[in-house]
Formats: sequence, C-alpha cells, structure tokens
Amino acid sequence: MNFMSSLALSTDLYELTMMAGYYTAGLDAPATFELYVRELPPNRSFLVAAGLEQALAYLEGLRFTDEHIAHLRGLPALRGVRREFFDEYLPRFRFSGDVWAVEEGIPVFPPAPLLRVTAPLPEAQLVETALLALVAFQTSVASRAARIVEAAAGREVVEFGARRAHGIEAGVLAARAAVIGGCDSTSNVEAGRRYGIPVSGTMAHSWVTAVPTEIAAFRQFAGIYGDRTVFLLDTYDTIAAARWVAASGLAPAAVRLDSGDVIALSREVRAILDATGLRATKIFASGDLDEWRIAAIVQAGAPVDGFGVGAALSTSSDAPSLGAIYKLVEIERGGVPVPVMKRSPGKQTYPGRKQVWRLFEHDTAVEDILEVEDAQGEPVRVEPPYAVRPLLVPVMRGGRRERPPVPLADLRARQLAATARLPAAVRRLAEPARYRVRLGSALQSAVERFG
Amino acid sequence: MNFMSSLALSTDLYELTMMAGYYTAGLDAPATFELYVRELPPNRSFLVAAGLEQALAYLEGLRFTDEHIAHLRGLPALRGVRREFFDEYLPRFRFSGDVWAVEEGIPVFPPAPLLRVTAPLPEAQLVETALLALVAFQTSVASRAARIVEAAAGREVVEFGARRAHGIEAGVLAARAAVIGGCDSTSNVEAGRRYGIPVSGTMAHSWVTAVPTEIAAFRQFAGIYGDRTVFLLDTYDTIAAARWVAASGLAPAAVRLDSGDVIALSREVRAILDATGLRATKIFASGDLDEWRIAAIVQAGAPVDGFGVGAALSTSSDAPSLGAIYKLVEIERGGVPVPVMKRSPGKQTYPGRKQVWRLFEHDTAVEDILEVEDAQGEPVRVEPPYAVRPLLVPVMRGGRRERPPVPLADLRARQLAATARLPAAVRRLAEPARYRVRLGSALQSAVERFG
Repeated sequence: MNFMSSLALSTDLYELTMMAGYYTAGLDAPATFELYVRELPPNRSFLVAAGLEQALAYLEGLRFTDEHIAHLRGLPALRGVRREFFDEYLPRFRFSGDVWAVEEGIPVFPPAPLLRVTAPLPEAQLVETALLALVAFQTSVASRAARIVEAAAGREVVEFGARRAHGIEAGVLAARAAVIGGCDSTSNVEAGRRYGIPVSGTMAHSWVTAVPTEIAAFRQFAGIYGDRTVFLLDTYDTIAAARWVAASGLAPAAVRLDSGDVIALSREVRAILDATGLRATKIFASGDLDEWRIAAIVQAGAPVDGFGVGAALSTSSDAPSLGAIYKLVEIERGGVPVPVMKRSPGKQTYPGRKQVWRLFEHDTAVEDILEVEDAQGEPVRVEPPYAVRPLLVPVMRGGRRERPPVPLADLRARQLAATARLPAAVRRLAEPARYRVRLGSALQSAVERFG
Repeated sequence: MNFMSSLALSTDLYELTMMAGYYTAGLDAPATFELYVRELPPNRSFLVAAGLEQALAYLEGLRFTDEHIAHLRGLPALRGVRREFFDEYLPRFRFSGDVWAVEEGIPVFPPAPLLRVTAPLPEAQLVETALLALVAFQTSVASRAARIVEAAAGREVVEFGARRAHGIEAGVLAARAAVIGGCDSTSNVEAGRRYGIPVSGTMAHSWVTAVPTEIAAFRQFAGIYGDRTVFLLDTYDTIAAARWVAASGLAPAAVRLDSGDVIALSREVRAILDATGLRATKIFASGDLDEWRIAAIVQAGAPVDGFGVGAALSTSSDAPSLGAIYKLVEIERGGVPVPVMKRSPGKQTYPGRKQVWRLFEHDTAVEDILEVEDAQGEPVRVEPPYAVRPLLVPVMRGGRRERPPVPLADLRARQLAATARLPAAVRRLAEPARYRVRLGSALQSAVERFG
C-alpha cells in the first residue's frame, strides 16, 4: 500500500461501467492498450516522457476499500451488474498486468506509444483515466522544461510555479517533471523532500514592504541568512536598490529582478555591483518568463545568471494538455491475440501491440519506426555508423515493478543526454525541423488490411 | 485534522525562509494580505470565484509534523534561523487568522480581492503559495465552465476532463469547480463521492472494439444496463451504427457522437432514430468541445441534447493560469494598521484593507467599487432602483471556519443566479462588454498619497 491506494474511484464512470460490464459478460481475456499522443501540440517539436513513476505507483497501489465498494453499490449507473462484482471481484482487486514503457526523460514523438498495458480486459480498462492524467501532465511539463532549459543555454533554471499549478499536488508533480526536463532546482519544498530535488528561494515583495524601509528589510534578511541572501530589487526602484546594496558592505549571493526591462536593468545592475567588487553576486531574473523571453535575454548577452520560471512550467501554459489517448490495440480471442483498430474519422488507431525503434546515425537520433512487436527482431537491418534501439522496455510484470524508482537526478541526466542526441534542427525553438516517424512494413500492412 | 493536514511543506521555499525570518526578527504583528487577479485573462469577461472551501480546509488543517520539522532543520537555506523556530514555534503552529472572501459561485472582476487574510505576519506569509494554487485553479475552471454553460443555452453539460487534468487530484477539483460554474454532472466518480455531484458516463471505443462485432458490443451492454445504455456510434461508421440501433428493438437512453461533423451527423441520426419511434433517445456530443464549438452547434439548431467537455474545462485550456497574486496591503506598526504598497512598474498594488461593493440597478449588477474598508459604511449612497452589497464576507475567525461547507448544488445555484444578474452584454462569448470596476474615493486618495 502507498499514498496512492485511495485512488480507485479517481476515474471516469465509464471505466467502471465497462469494467463491471466486462466482468458481468465474462470478457476477461488479456487485452493490450497503448497510451500515446496523436500529434505534437503547437510549439513542440518533441516530447519528454515523464510520469511513469507515479503511474506505476498508482497501479501497484490500486485497491477498492470497503467505503469505495459501498459507494459503487449505491450508484444508479451500476444497477444491472452481477452482485459478485461487488462481493468478490472488487474486494480482491489487484492490478495484475504487464507494462512496457518509454523510460522517463527519453524524448518521444507522436504517435509512438509512451506506455503499453497488457492485462485482463477489466483491469486494463479501469486504469485508463488515471494513467492518462498521470503520464500526460508530467510529459507536458517535462517537454516545456526541455525547451526552456535549451533557451537558457547553460544558465540556471529554477522551477517557481507552485502557485500557478492546478492545485497543490499538481505543483509537486510539476516540479518533479520540470527537473526531469532539465531544471536545476525548484522552489517547492514538498517536491524537494519527496524527490530529493535541490530547493531554492529568495524573498518576496512582502518582506520588503513589511518593514518600514527597504534598507532595514535588506539588513534584517542578511542578518539572518548571511551570504546566502538574495535581495529582490524591484519593490520600489531597482537601480536605487542596487546602488544601496553595492554600498552596503553586504555580499549577497544574488539579486533578483522581477519586473521592467530585464536586459537593460541587468546590465546597469551588473555595472553597479561590479564597481564595488560584488562580482560574485549573481543576477537572477523572474516574472512571466518563458523560453522566448529567456532566449531574447540570452541572445542579447544580458548578464543574467539564472531564471525563475512559473506558469510556463507548472501549467505548460502554451500547451496545457496533450490530447493523450489510451486505446485497445489487441485482445485475445480463443487464446489468440487479435489486433483491433478504431476507424473514427481523424481519430483512427494503429492495430496490434507495438514497439518503437529509434534509429541513430553516429550518435544522433534520425528516425523512429513504429512496428508491430511480433515482427521478428529489429525492423531495419543496420550497420555502423547506424544503430537501432527499442524505446519500450518492460517496467512491470504481473502487477509488480521490475525495479525501484530511479533517482530524479539520474532521470534528469538521462533526459539531458538523450535530448542532446536529437538533431539540433529538431531541438531549436523557432521553426524546428520535423523529426521523422514512420510505420514499419508489418504495421503498414496491418493498417491496410483493416482499411 | 483532515486530509489536507500534511500540506505544510507544499509551499515555496521563500515562504518558509521569510516566515522563519519574521519569527527570528520578532516581526509578528498582524498583517493583511489580499489575493486577487490583476486583469482578466484572454477570452474572459468575468471570473467565477471557486476554491474557497479547499482554501479553508487547508488553513484549518495546517500542521507541521515531526517529519516536516526534521526535514526543515536539515535545509541549508534555513541555517541562521533561531532554534526556537524549530523547537517551539513549528510544533505548535496553527493558523490563527481571520479570512474574508467572496463566496464561491459569485462572479468577480479584477482587480477586486477574492480573499483577504489577516494574521500574524509569519502565518499570513506561509499560506501564500497554497492559497493561490487552490483558489486560482478552481476559479479558472469555474469561469470557463460558466462560458461553456452559457453557450450550451440550457442543454446538458457534463464535465469529462479527468484524463486531461494536471494529475488525479486536479481532476477531482476541476470537476467540483465545473459544477460550480454550472455543469450538470461529471464523469469523475471520486468527485461525485466527495462532493455529492451527479455522475454520468457512457461507453468508450474500447468496449466496441473489444467485442468481435459492434452489434454484439451494443447488445451485451444493453443486456446489462438496459434503458440506461448510451451507445457510442462512431467507432466504425456513425450512420450505419445509428441505423442498426434504430432497427434493433433496443431503446437506449442516448447515443454519443465523438467525431466528424456533429451538426450534420446529429440531424441524420435524429431522423433515423425518430423514424423508428426512438424520440426519447437523446443525442450527446463530445470530442474537443469548447464554448465556441458548442455555440456553433446550438446556433445551427442541431438536435444535440447534451455535451461532454474535457480539457476545455479541466485545464481551462485557453487560460490555464490566472496570474493571481497575494500581496501585503496593511501591517500593524506600534499597534496602528499602516497601509503598504509596492510600486514595481506594471505591478503596483493598492494599499490598505479593502472591501468590494457591487452596485445593482433593479436586479442587474452594473459596477464594482473597490474601497478601503475603514471608509465609513457604503461607498456610494443609493436609493431604489439602486442597491449596493459587499462581496467580501467573513468566512474564518481565529483560524476557525464560520460555517460548515456549503453543498455543491447550492454553490451551483448561487452561481447561476448571480451570473444571470450580470448584464447580458458582459456575459456574451464574443466581444463582451467590459464591466466597470472603479476605485472608491478613499482608495483613490490613498493611491495618490503613495504615488
């Protein structure tokens, strides 16, 4: 049991009516669902997989408590369901399936699956809603973070977005995903505690306005926190505040600019600080930053050492949802796996259980190939300097995780290394090149057979 | 204690460094902070206040556990803080302040405060991050919901967005806020259980694809759920499926269209159903709907009886954050309340503890007036047909709630009634009129004194 054990009802009603329906109709054959994104959202040329850890914790912890079951018995929508569903099936329910997934931190390209679940049909169905919410949200945030970190070009990026997040838990998960996406630290203390992320913070305008004068406010803060102090300069007049700091004899770790023309102000403040020898005092910028503003600051050569980024990260503000889907692709009938496909206009699916193969040339990823898994071995035969690697790896068997959680610092390092292997033209912010994703020949034939 | 009692560390580090700093420096005078939105986001002409219930639960339940305190003692950022902070202050910490707020469901206009906290400075500071996350998120969703419900013009709206929400808890809170905004029900079973919201659901494409034929899938579902069945028609061919349903002898409660041209398909499906007497079978539409698409369907007179809306609600997709802020406006110095003001360019605040007065003409709201609270009585003297009412009401005193939670159905009814009293020109979707918000004369003078 874990903190996620009370989440069995955090799902759409239809998952429960279908689960109960499958049970009642005796439809419990093994089924495979794939979780994927149909197409890249605006302003994204790649996604960064994240949220798998929470998805696995959810699956491992999934239980129906007596209270849940009593609630479900009383739902009018579940009238007609066999009593054994409530009396026997739900009390003993455990997720018993297998999961293959793209590891957290790895760049992915639609429509390749991020996650593949194989389990008895009622189990595989129930978990749809929660898996989508857990994987798609963190993937959104990690993907935005990767762009912001790219724009910052080596300067520090701190995730600042708890207050803009969609509730308290969303803020903690956003901080985790932002670090997978390459952020250096977070202001979120709970995220720091839970995931071992470095935490950082400065002071707010309230500290400055709570004390009769700005000077007294700075002195009092420095009196407590010494050389770890970060002064927020823009409460009244940024340049006047910088002059006072430079003349104060204090040696703050950094100053923060939160409004105004950051490029011009940072230059002026840098000159003021340098003139009195405060060369080690860093300049930190915040205030509605995103990858575009950061890129402009960096390209101008402004002396900004780090950025605090809020809503752009914690809500993935320019693409707040990915439209991820979780679709049945295969089901056993009479002991034989049968590929299935939905043909709704504009929303068709790809049949069968798939693998994603990434083709590298020297050490650069050049193409992803979606192929049915039972196509023998590698989908293309390659020789150096080419290499091909499968992206989906087994992460859960029989409802148990294959491995303990990976430390977040390792996920971050994995992401930075894997993203660096994408072509630079795909990674660039503006008008990025499109990365090639194609269907393997066996998958192509399967689609045509269904068409 | 309640489920929110472990949230003390779910905050930005600087709230804790400032709280510890205030404590260490002996700055514990009563301070007043106001939570508000600077300006309306794009595509909104009003906001609907929501999230107060969770904010009050958070404040009442706020405690530092031994584990929290041990973690904070080890944080390098808190070196320099007096030991008594960890040994005495944190273990006994309770939020002891007063809160005034706009009640959930009431339309609000920036920059009027949604919430006002008066508490000893360290307490009032600590709660900033969580209050912003809790109030701003639900206010975003309730505000979007009000537009979508307006567009639906009396047709049923079901919140469907759990899978698009920013994690599992965000989905539950979004469902709550969507109902405050006027939605009729949710697909989220946990939200239904927690808040007594009606839940509804249909079937997914997986039910249809899991069974060898669509006909068998429909028959099996109807065999279990009888006349509550909702058939999803678009897995293969919507019109063919509708024809089969019409000829089947079954009498489903509804059919759902999830792709294609909803206006044309709904007309064709309606004609097919009506021709065999299935006049009571409703037509339900879903699939990337928002207020604009719903308005187009309604204006075309398409025979759609209800709408399922996902990401547009649960992520407030066109305005996923509100930029809400929480600013110190007053602090006691030597026992006297002193208004304070921040003057950062483009980000100035309004000094002093305020009330929001709403002016009605007959029963229509025509103007809001922001005024300092100690301005005597009502800010404008009015006679019938005018009336004026204060929006901020006391909801917590000395850290205890004034009243039990209001049932969600009552919040929804309050919202529908209050929003109906806004001018129609303000409520309309496209090019809405701007509602007038002005500063009262005492507040105007205070701003000028500081300027």
